Amino acid sequence: MANSKYEYVKKFEMEDKLPACNWIVVRIDGHKFHRFSDDHDFDKPNDENALNLMNSCAVSMVEQFSDIVFAYGVSDEYSFIWKETSQFYDRRASKILSLSVSYFTSMYVMKWKDFFPHKDLKDPPCFDGRIVLYPRVKIVRDYLSWRQVDCHINNQYNTCFWMLVKSGKSNKDAQERLKGTLAKDKNELLFRQFGINYDKLPDIFKKGSCVYKDTVEETVKPDDGGNPVKRQRRRVIMGHFNIIEDRFWNEHPNILKED
Amino acid sequence: MANSKYEYVKKFEMEDKLPACNWIVVRIDGHKFHRFSDDHDFDKPNDENALNLMNSCAVSMVEQFSDIVFAYGVSDEYSFIWKETSQFYDRRASKILSLSVSYFTSMYVMKWKDFFPHKDLKDPPCFDGRIVLYPRVKIVRDYLSWRQVDCHINNQYNTCFWMLVKSGKSNKDAQERLKGTLAKDKNELLFRQFGINYDKLPDIFKKGSCVYKDTVEETVKPDDGGNPVKRQRRRVIMGHFNIIEDRFWNEHPNILKED
Amino acid sequence: MANSKYEYVKKFEMEDKLPACNWIVVRIDGHKFHRFSDDHDFDKPNDENALNLMNSCAVSMVEQFSDIVFAYGVSDEYSFIWKETSQFYDRRASKILSLSVSYFTSMYVMKWKDFFPHKDLKDPPCFDGRIVLYPRVKIVRDYLSWRQVDCHINNQYNTCFWMLVKSGKSNKDAQERLKGTLAKDKNELLFRQFGINYDKLPDIFKKGSCVYKDTVEETVKPDDGGNPVKRQRRRVIMGHFNIIEDRFWNEHPNILKED
Amino acid sequence: MANSKYEYVKKFEMEDKLPACNWIVVRIDGHKFHRFSDDHDFDKPNDENALNLMNSCAVSMVEQFSDIVFAYGVSDEYSFIWKETSQFYDRRASKILSLSVSYFTSMYVMKWKDFFPHKDLKDPPCFDGRIVLYPRVKIVRDYLSWRQVDCHINNQYNTCFWMLVKSGKSNKDAQERLKGTLAKDKNELLFRQFGINYDKLPDIFKKGSCVYKDTVEETVKPDDGGNPVKRQRRRVIMGHFNIIEDRFWNEHPNILKED
Repeated sequence: MANSKYEYVKKFEMEDKLPACNWIVVRIDGHKFHRFSDDHDFDKPNDENALNLMNSCAVSMVEQFSDIVFAYGVSDEYSFIWKETSQFYDRRASKILSLSVSYFTSMYVMKWKDFFPHKDLKDPPCFDGRIVLYPRVKIVRDYLSWRQVDCHINNQYNTCFWMLVKSGKSNKDAQERLKGTLAKDKNELLFRQFGINYDKLPDIFKKGSCVYKDTVEETVKPDDGGNPVKRQRRRVIMGHFNIIEDRFWNEHPNILKED
Repeated sequence: MANSKYEYVKKFEMEDKLPACNWIVVRIDGHKFHRFSDDHDFDKPNDENALNLMNSCAVSMVEQFSDIVFAYGVSDEYSFIWKETSQFYDRRASKILSLSVSYFTSMYVMKWKDFFPHKDLKDPPCFDGRIVLYPRVKIVRDYLSWRQVDCHINNQYNTCFWMLVKSGKSNKDAQERLKGTLAKDKNELLFRQFGINYDKLPDIFKKGSCVYKDTVEETVKPDDGGNPVKRQRRRVIMGHFNIIEDRFWNEHPNILKED
Repeated sequence: MANSKYEYVKKFEMEDKLPACNWIVVRIDGHKFHRFSDDHDFDKPNDENALNLMNSCAVSMVEQFSDIVFAYGVSDEYSFIWKETSQFYDRRASKILSLSVSYFTSMYVMKWKDFFPHKDLKDPPCFDGRIVLYPRVKIVRDYLSWRQVDCHINNQYNTCFWMLVKSGKSNKDAQERLKGTLAKDKNELLFRQFGINYDKLPDIFKKGSCVYKDTVEETVKPDDGGNPVKRQRRRVIMGHFNIIEDRFWNEHPNILKED
Repeated sequence: MANSKYEYVKKFEMEDKLPACNWIVVRIDGHKFHRFSDDHDFDKPNDENALNLMNSCAVSMVEQFSDIVFAYGVSDEYSFIWKETSQFYDRRASKILSLSVSYFTSMYVMKWKDFFPHKDLKDPPCFDGRIVLYPRVKIVRDYLSWRQVDCHINNQYNTCFWMLVKSGKSNKDAQERLKGTLAKDKNELLFRQFGINYDKLPDIFKKGSCVYKDTVEETVKPDDGGNPVKRQRRRVIMGHFNIIEDRFWNEHPNILKED
């Protein structure tokens, strides 16, 4: 039984190669995570275990896919920057998108127990994803700045909101209280009413998380003459940096480098 | 700190709506499952637990996404047919693709222990996916026929191959022995050399698996007069049918129905 | 001097094949023809010479491109339906679009003097174009109905508007007079105020123009026995038909026929 | 008669916005110009009138579309570079492509008599077109270099070929003679056999033609005090420059400038 009679259906598959010389951003986003975080009793406004789980999955991603040069995460979303010259699966969009989302999801379920040893998964965690192309390093940096500013704005608002709610206000009253407030108003509210210095909150909440590959020099062992032998090693770093200002990028010039 | 300065990066997001009046096929495929099945000692040529796990995930998919009207699976791949009129996320390709792949992956890891209670997952299972559009019911049926013929051809070959290997032949010799053989040659080989009647092998191996929604009538309870009260209920069916011939489709005219 | 050093730039060319089994509609539209028609003193609301020129170009198109099965034109726009199985330039969108627009434009300028012997072209006539895909015959017919209804609505409005303007009203007053009027109000206005029976206006204005290929049987010459010899010939027909109702399509079942 | 019943067909129109921050190259190419040039007795290997006509159309294009920053033409092809920030018709590909091709075609027919006063157009000249996107200035320059190297290679070959044919060789023998020859072999052939110094041939043949906008300062008139008044004016320049080397670009830094 040959299959040639039906094989014409393959010609309906459309090519979806991404254009060359563009940085590929895959942004993954928790699907209906508002409900998912309620179902699993996540702390508000930030659940450290949940963030650590996201970061751990992102580290695995960066280790797994060698063309990812940087990742930035906040809340239930993570952006992965693939280098502009990547030839992963011939730059086919559906391969890059589906494998990214699938691998991340797989890690999330597998690692769940490491971060929530006393909670069972009640629903399947699920992530959607999208691909956006950026033709210049400058725009990739602006993309990352956009996400980090968003992290800051949301975190400041959510910190105020949840402090008000925990102090007894209804959700609606808390929203009403915050309507039209500026950044400095929110900081003052936190300080005066709750004794919280916003600037002293953990960086993982205020700045989100960055994952990237770095080259480190390490001493392996002494050689025959007793001198230390060094070698270069690529390792994956996770931290909470200001990626809006130039400093981080000046110190890591190899991460985003045009060909 | 307003975010407007960086928000221009959003305009790089491209629209990816799928055209109307096309059936949307999402085909999911195990990524590097050759190795994954070795690492987890899957039976050859078919591991019934692994197939049952795939089918269980497919049933969850069909339950979860109401616009999926039919699914067909074989080995480590599954095709999900979304109805041509689906407005799921406004028919955005990346939403449909990423959520399908993510949900399937999530279920696969969560259900693993149900089907392999004595095996731990050693590597993260990962699936790639693609979307293909078919503008007519006839072509959707040819697509499904293509996959089922493929199932048959591969299963017949693999059954011969693994019987030869288990009987002591090297992989290479087994390949050599099967080179150029026709379907009937393979059936004869199985019968003469191994006493296997190919037609008697389980349908799940020979025909793959189908999942779809059906309407069943069920008796709920007697009413006040003691007469049985019936109601219609949608339920998800899984089975191993011949989907190449017309019979199945004639018996289920509502599954693939043009608007 | 080999060119290999620079040839990498070719890889930026993206594939743009149109999916199979879809009717390809190329709609051409006069670019800034409001001004073009003023500059060339076109009659209002309809210039018969200008319409005849459009139709003559459309006939040439249908003769030139054998995969065009039907064309419909109104005012300065023309839609060309390419058969769903067309393999013209491998269904590459840019080839189909650019050649259609270029050929139509070329004919328009070349034929201008045939229809406007006493007017010189003052500006280059220019047309934009777009491609729309329709997966079913029914939708192609609805597309054509959409254009013909549009022709009717616009023509009725424009006939009233220009009669009012020619009778001395300002453009603004004419618009005001017509605001909110229904079809029957407009017909009554034409009849009462200007003695015009709208139904008696030429079909080319009310219905637009259709161009298609038909097979006709013609007597070529008597054979040796004196009997007439007939042969089938494909010829291009132009006319002003009602293409909303079924009658035309029932009489021409071969024009739009699914494979 | 409202049109709402059929208007759903509009939803089949797909968005085709070109991504931001990419230079848009529209390359126009004579369709079946081998035959067209035979039909109109073009000189071989180069017809100066035909090239001048192409250049004149390109100048009109650059004047007409303000976002075209540079154009390069050779033989029957012309490439138009639209600036990366162009918002012409919201960067819709079909608008940019169809209007470019239509306008060029229109000019070609309208200007024909200016360049071929004693020849009538026998067939409609027709051009196809395509759009290619380049995300960096460097690649745009490599694209232009690719076309100019191609011009050089083709012109050298064609000059040899037609000299051989005009000297009595058959087309086939001429091809045979040139098979495997290098650039210097061809130059020597031209010099020894036909007394032609290739380097002395007109630049329009060897280098193709460039069209761009430049800012010139011109003296308008003396002011009241008798001093000359100057003003800046944009004008369109056409010339035959080496656009592979840096010199031209260093002298015209504003043509290709990243935002």
